[in-house]
Amino acid sequence: MKVGKARAYTNIALIKYWGKKDDQLILPMNSSLSLTLDTFYTETTVSFDSALLKDQFYLNDQLQNEKQTEKISRFLDIVRKNNQTDLFAHVKSHNFVPTAAGLASSASGLAALAGACSAALNLDLSPKELSILARRGSGSACRSIFGGFAEWKQGDSDSTSYAEQIPADSWENDLSMLFVLVNDAQKDISSRDGMKRTVETSVFYEGWLKAAADDLSAAKQAIKNKDFISLGKTAEANALRMHATTLGATPPFTYWSPDSLKVMNLVRRARTEGIPCYFTMDAGPNVKILVQRKDREQLFQFFSEYFDKKQLILADSGPGLKILSSERSLSHD
Amino acid sequence: MKVGKARAYTNIALIKYWGKKDDQLILPMNSSLSLTLDTFYTETTVSFDSALLKDQFYLNDQLQNEKQTEKISRFLDIVRKNNQTDLFAHVKSHNFVPTAAGLASSASGLAALAGACSAALNLDLSPKELSILARRGSGSACRSIFGGFAEWKQGDSDSTSYAEQIPADSWENDLSMLFVLVNDAQKDISSRDGMKRTVETSVFYEGWLKAAADDLSAAKQAIKNKDFISLGKTAEANALRMHATTLGATPPFTYWSPDSLKVMNLVRRARTEGIPCYFTMDAGPNVKILVQRKDREQLFQFFSEYFDKKQLILADSGPGLKILSSERSLSHD
Repeated sequence: MKVGKARAYTNIALIKYWGKKDDQLILPMNSSLSLTLDTFYTETTVSFDSALLKDQFYLNDQLQNEKQTEKISRFLDIVRKNNQTDLFAHVKSHNFVPTAAGLASSASGLAALAGACSAALNLDLSPKELSILARRGSGSACRSIFGGFAEWKQGDSDSTSYAEQIPADSWENDLSMLFVLVNDAQKDISSRDGMKRTVETSVFYEGWLKAAADDLSAAKQAIKNKDFISLGKTAEANALRMHATTLGATPPFTYWSPDSLKVMNLVRRARTEGIPCYFTMDAGPNVKILVQRKDREQLFQFFSEYFDKKQLILADSGPGLKILSSERSLSHD
Repeated sequence: MKVGKARAYTNIALIKYWGKKDDQLILPMNSSLSLTLDTFYTETTVSFDSALLKDQFYLNDQLQNEKQTEKISRFLDIVRKNNQTDLFAHVKSHNFVPTAAGLASSASGLAALAGACSAALNLDLSPKELSILARRGSGSACRSIFGGFAEWKQGDSDSTSYAEQIPADSWENDLSMLFVLVNDAQKDISSRDGMKRTVETSVFYEGWLKAAADDLSAAKQAIKNKDFISLGKTAEANALRMHATTLGATPPFTYWSPDSLKVMNLVRRARTEGIPCYFTMDAGPNVKILVQRKDREQLFQFFSEYFDKKQLILADSGPGLKILSSERSLSHD
């Protein structure tokens, strides 16, 4: 029995990953940039066990069916192939993230799984190698290896596509995000299907790629300058561009709900009332608002006038992947 | 005293006019296609009068101030220059259109003014010449010269940019539109300023131009085939593409309100419930829904469950410009 445990935190892209150039290897069409957060995370224990006849996956103490286990097994297959083992695994994950509502549970989930596998098999992977491995499970997971700001350099092969931390002289600790959960229903179109349809059919995809490259440079410069306004403006514009591409797909689609637009309008209003803040959105209707930590309570108060407090979650900048090897004996059940 | 009177109906573009290549002459970046409607119209009387020391403009019996009269005077200047007259004019318009809420009052307004000027000065203009003249006042007005379907061929000079009726064997009489007025506030960004910013800065404008050309061909083919579904799908996709371009502008903006998205979602739901219908939107938050005339009451009923009936207006296909010269003596006040 080879057991490993790890915890990884979710990350929210400020410059979005939107489209793959290689579905198999999960190589993205553009580089992206994210902030890792402290509130949403996944803890995963993996036990490679010669007594198992197939992989078993428990999510939040619920045994998952074959279809739900598929993504995990595909990832374990990569690990097994890389390391010449044929042991099946028992995977036990606790997701401290509302799933499938654009809150990026797959990022923390697959990053934690990569870390747990590395620990279980004593692979002693470097952060870069962990990032590459996590990427194979879910693209954005490669950024959750790192705390603070991370840049996923798109690369053009398995070994050249990985994330790196962006040094920010601890400026990330001045930043927070307010999540506004406008709809916790399952998505109509997964991010995977959405980006595929967009790459294949959107008349705006070429424009997106050009803009994303410029936005990335602008965001990195803003981080270098610790310029919150510039970072926020760039992130907000980048998110709107990503969402515009879906309107140019065939057939067109959107992740926005009426309440998403309501939140965007309120963010603009909050700015005019003196709270610097900027929204971003992923492949779902929820809105995440970038704000300076010093203003986060004021922003929370502002939004609590329009939304139930249960719909509002504050997060600060969070740490990178944590290998919890020392809990090996405890985590085995 | 030279007096003329005309009535023109508004038109709603199914393939949008979005961007100018010549601000002065109002030459568009792409050709467009519209349906003229019977419910919203403008009646205008113009009296060229040697006793006037400047132009006077009454809109719905209210004398307009200098700034409000500017657009009218600029148009009259073109008419005066073309016809070697220096008479100022008294212009009296009644707008049977809620103004400046994306309901295209400038289309019917400037088409009616062009017709009234032509009547007053006995210019005996052909429909094509009227269309060119109306275009100088407001781009989309050139389509309101015609009833039913009209195509505005972009052209590349004053004399080659005009609308023509698209023969449809009276199929236009099978079509209606439901207007859902979600917000009658004045727009934040005029269509003029919005298209200007989009042409100059949007990373999606190139994609828009390519798509608009394809959409126009598809719409014309659908009209030829009397294929409602195909026409509706094309119009809806084209409108979404137009609105996507604003999200790629710097700074980004949108004409959508939360209720606009609510209407779009309801249109999709109405389709799944068996009412074929498709939305379109202009430079404002209101939504217009293309529906077959036989289904229009059912669609009205469907929407009256979600909106106040005062917010819902049904329109059928409407006629072209009507010169009301015979009312000359009545219309002079």
